[in-house]
Amino acid sequence: MALIGETLPPPPPAGGPPAFDAAFRAGLDDLFAWRRDVRHFLTQPLPAGRLEALVAQACTAPSVGLCQPWRFVRVDDAARRAAVRASFTRCNAQALAAQEGERAALYATLKLAGLDEAPEHLAVFVEPDPATGHGLGRATMPETVAYSAVMAIHTLWLAAAAEGIGVGWVSILDPAEVTAALEVPAHWHLVAYLCIGYPAAPADTPELERAGWERRRPPADLMVAR
Amino acid sequence: MALIGETLPPPPPAGGPPAFDAAFRAGLDDLFAWRRDVRHFLTQPLPAGRLEALVAQACTAPSVGLCQPWRFVRVDDAARRAAVRASFTRCNAQALAAQEGERAALYATLKLAGLDEAPEHLAVFVEPDPATGHGLGRATMPETVAYSAVMAIHTLWLAAAAEGIGVGWVSILDPAEVTAALEVPAHWHLVAYLCIGYPAAPADTPELERAGWERRRPPADLMVAR
Repeated sequence: MALIGETLPPPPPAGGPPAFDAAFRAGLDDLFAWRRDVRHFLTQPLPAGRLEALVAQACTAPSVGLCQPWRFVRVDDAARRAAVRASFTRCNAQALAAQEGERAALYATLKLAGLDEAPEHLAVFVEPDPATGHGLGRATMPETVAYSAVMAIHTLWLAAAAEGIGVGWVSILDPAEVTAALEVPAHWHLVAYLCIGYPAAPADTPELERAGWERRRPPADLMVAR
Repeated sequence: MALIGETLPPPPPAGGPPAFDAAFRAGLDDLFAWRRDVRHFLTQPLPAGRLEALVAQACTAPSVGLCQPWRFVRVDDAARRAAVRASFTRCNAQALAAQEGERAALYATLKLAGLDEAPEHLAVFVEPDPATGHGLGRATMPETVAYSAVMAIHTLWLAAAAEGIGVGWVSILDPAEVTAALEVPAHWHLVAYLCIGYPAAPADTPELERAGWERRRPPADLMVAR
């Protein structure tokens, strides 16, 4: 049996990597700053084919064992959207009830979804036990399947921001209700429900920070050495 | 009680978003293509301060309720690295034993970690029930706390690739063993263990595809309408 880890790397393709220059890296930092979680959308539709192009970019994300477990569901049907909206309304009312005092009053002022205005709704599921990838890399950490889809979502989010398109991740939902409303295979696992469209008010600071809900922490406080 | 979702957006900061032009977007697509999961590293160290700068970029990622649950652990200690290496060796032998026939033979040829060569090891945990964020957005989908850290990792991965620095996500580990070896709070949840350094052979196709383990699927096959 070959020793694991003793092989040479497979030969890379001809031609080296592109040189990402300082201007590109500065643009990337701008992109990270302006890639916000959008709750306020214009109703203006996306150009034809744009959502499909964003999904194609999302599929360039890393996945455990190259299993590509992501499944994208474009939700257009009014009744299905209404069912998702109802799940949000119910879950958000419960979340408000769980907040206390001044926090509850502040929570009630927050806009936590753009479901009514965003022209595109995109649900992202995973096939939790995909044949693709042949199980590689996920035996001890099966959650890496869902994590792969999260990186696809984040890729889409950044690609959208580079087009001036906003994304809002709605997590105040009952996954079982959403799965049933969309009539996808019952064993699929919901990772995210995304609202996508042009932002009403682009910003480079989190809306939750501007609203006084939470503030950003210094990165150095979140790193330790061992 | 105020109606949820009826508030106007908080005012955006002065000045609009930058115009991300076609050249930047083409560079972003290159970055997505060359951001590979690296297993073959040079031992050359990163410049002083570079890892801290990458962590700071990671902290610009979105997080549920702005809770910033990520905790970065830079692992330098040789004994701790050896304990992580031992966990990988054990888990990888078990994973090999679970493969059958030709798949097992192919698995045995794969290099699945760069633990011995990569100059930097970075473990990423989450505080699973953070006080920050005040619970917003995670009552029905508590996994969004870990998902937030996944987006921070992906942000770091892209920022590193833009500097010509490679990242390899090692998931063939026992999370309990890694948590114990690093002596972090026992309730922290391990999301990823990253090898970071200059890649020995940059590429724009997945190593698992070049090795014949798995192939990429057409995005259109992974999208449905509802």
